[in-house]
Amino acid sequence: MIEQKLTTELEDRVRACRAAARQVANLGTEAKNRALHAMADELLASEAEILAANAVDVDAAKANGLSAAMVDRLTLTPERLAGMADALREVASFDDPVGEITKTWRRPNGLEVGYMRIPLGVIAMIYEARPNVTSDAAGLCLKAGNTVVLRGGSEAFHSNQAVAEALHRGLEREGLPPAAVTLLPTTDRAAIAELLTMNALIDLVIPRGGEGLIRYVDEHSRIPVIKHYKGVCHLYVDEDADLDAALRLLIDGKTSRPGVCNALETLLVHEAVAGAFLPMAAEALRARGVELRGCPKTRALVPDAAEATEDDYFAEYLALILAARVVPDFDAALDHIARYGSNHTEVIATNHLGRARRFRREVDASVVLVNASSRFSDGGQLGLGAEIGISTTKLHAYGPMGLEALTTRKFVVMGEGQTRHPVE
Amino acid sequence: MIEQKLTTELEDRVRACRAAARQVANLGTEAKNRALHAMADELLASEAEILAANAVDVDAAKANGLSAAMVDRLTLTPERLAGMADALREVASFDDPVGEITKTWRRPNGLEVGYMRIPLGVIAMIYEARPNVTSDAAGLCLKAGNTVVLRGGSEAFHSNQAVAEALHRGLEREGLPPAAVTLLPTTDRAAIAELLTMNALIDLVIPRGGEGLIRYVDEHSRIPVIKHYKGVCHLYVDEDADLDAALRLLIDGKTSRPGVCNALETLLVHEAVAGAFLPMAAEALRARGVELRGCPKTRALVPDAAEATEDDYFAEYLALILAARVVPDFDAALDHIARYGSNHTEVIATNHLGRARRFRREVDASVVLVNASSRFSDGGQLGLGAEIGISTTKLHAYGPMGLEALTTRKFVVMGEGQTRHPVE
Repeated sequence: MIEQKLTTELEDRVRACRAAARQVANLGTEAKNRALHAMADELLASEAEILAANAVDVDAAKANGLSAAMVDRLTLTPERLAGMADALREVASFDDPVGEITKTWRRPNGLEVGYMRIPLGVIAMIYEARPNVTSDAAGLCLKAGNTVVLRGGSEAFHSNQAVAEALHRGLEREGLPPAAVTLLPTTDRAAIAELLTMNALIDLVIPRGGEGLIRYVDEHSRIPVIKHYKGVCHLYVDEDADLDAALRLLIDGKTSRPGVCNALETLLVHEAVAGAFLPMAAEALRARGVELRGCPKTRALVPDAAEATEDDYFAEYLALILAARVVPDFDAALDHIARYGSNHTEVIATNHLGRARRFRREVDASVVLVNASSRFSDGGQLGLGAEIGISTTKLHAYGPMGLEALTTRKFVVMGEGQTRHPVE
Repeated sequence: MIEQKLTTELEDRVRACRAAARQVANLGTEAKNRALHAMADELLASEAEILAANAVDVDAAKANGLSAAMVDRLTLTPERLAGMADALREVASFDDPVGEITKTWRRPNGLEVGYMRIPLGVIAMIYEARPNVTSDAAGLCLKAGNTVVLRGGSEAFHSNQAVAEALHRGLEREGLPPAAVTLLPTTDRAAIAELLTMNALIDLVIPRGGEGLIRYVDEHSRIPVIKHYKGVCHLYVDEDADLDAALRLLIDGKTSRPGVCNALETLLVHEAVAGAFLPMAAEALRARGVELRGCPKTRALVPDAAEATEDDYFAEYLALILAARVVPDFDAALDHIARYGSNHTEVIATNHLGRARRFRREVDASVVLVNASSRFSDGGQLGLGAEIGISTTKLHAYGPMGLEALTTRKFVVMGEGQTRHPVE
């Protein structure tokens, strides 16, 4: 009985979020921006309540023995709260994707046909500990004309509730329904499973968190899921590469932030330049504390490199470790990437036009870069403004997702009474 | 043991199709067009075998008591086979979507970022009796650079096998792997269920057939599904409509082909013009054998109209029946469509600019038409060239799907050695 009551309550909340979607979809840009600023204002005005709620979560996390890193990610401070408010104001400054006519064409019968960008409807975000995701996701979904169902992690339960209450005050100040940002008041997995069956009410699910969460969502969802598993990113140093530039791409890609998905994991080097490049690269990596694991040809040039196994080529280290392989030619590099890559981000260093073009065309990854660091594979860096996630699956969105990925297109047709068949 | 063996064999076939995807994705346009023409040639050259195989299916269908309409849809003739070959040649004539750079922009650091259109990879089509779907789907998927797994219905088993064998000869003539068009040699539902788990090998599933098939696929698939349930299409005759033009839209939309998804099912009329429009419309409909079911205000104006129930407003009749309702104002029309519509196709007849713009913007349907017949909601009519289906869900594709819907976009970035952080 209790379970059924909970289930019904969950569905009622999702229905209220869906009911708000039509109103939110039809808001003008200025109305949405005013709401975003009001939400930011209310976050700041609720600082005391939010930090008090956060302290409850942080104390529980420490008592439950969570790692220092996880406690740090969970912790809110006045500065971090101000950052969350600033992020909402930044979203207000982005272009509104809704209503854009992306293309029009005329048909022989005079019909004018075009694509108009429209909101998706209701988006569900399922995420783990960071409380800032609550306001970030709410802001991005609202700007793209969607309502959002948020299901945060249990560690941040009180923080998320306090943040959502502040956001609701902002929405209400602007006459908008609080259900536009619906935070589920439960963190158990049964609620996720239930949510994932509601394909008549929710248009898209975006899980953000560890691989376990993402796989769970993917396996149980009857709603379309946009997800990102891992980034096994390669740099291929071609025989015609500028080796100094290639070295900078390697160092930036591997060491500027090794724990993120667009960091380099494997270096491929054409054998014609391996002798010149690998010892120089090994020295620069060694100086930065990077462990090198290589194929026999790599180890012949860099004797202190460890041996790379098949597992190393599949690995997303997210650490200061780099796998390296000498390849006999360009096609072998493409074959390696096709076999071991994760469709995330791939880089070539070359000055050869033909191979640059072939790499760009033939490598199947969401971001393919020629003579630029893998670390640019990011919504902000690529110029999308916001980034709501990265998709490594191909349907709907592939690669960094900005506001546009939270919309779809409809056909709009203008005529003067045209019929398909003559009507007498 | 037998079941496991079958399962393994199925997976081996899908793996072979996946293995062919990289080669097919990198084919140039001319190579794909040559293959399409070769497939068309081989269909014609195999006429005797294909018609003999089809006769086996048709005899079985008759013996099993299938309806005359279903037997007709299953039956191939020399003319229909020629039509299938012509359809492949027509696909060859379409623009190749692959490789198109749809947009580029420069970043402040000099990076040139763009979107490049690329194939999805492997597409599974699950369909029912018509054998022409085998060659149509194969041609469209190939032109968009994808390989395809086909699972046809049991009624057309022998026909589909013979068609696929001819297509394979065409592929082989052009040096392409027959696995690029993989017809599964089984028609049982267990094979569908197994197929729908292979999300590591298949990028997209498109079911085509009855609502039962589509629901089954949607409920069991772990692969993204693009689907189309039903079309409950409305014509709203505004107070500022040209009533003669509106009548032509009504007659074309309701009677030119009542059994298709873009036919009109419900007429909404502003009460200010109901007295002028409804009697005239009823007469024209009566003359064409259309049964009218209306609200009380409709029936006051058209005494022989039957009473429309709530179910009538939700109904996709696909027959010569029309529901009608008089609405007090424009917003009531929008509310009716939001409640009863199926997000397929919606039409307004009006000469009022503001309401035309609001209807176009606010109505949530994949195709929204102003002063044009609902029957234009079709890939060919809208100018997409081919049509592989219509999507009434919003992810990835919404509305009629052409070749472009069988592709996705990747980011391509050109630089001169840019790094995200300075590297000394």
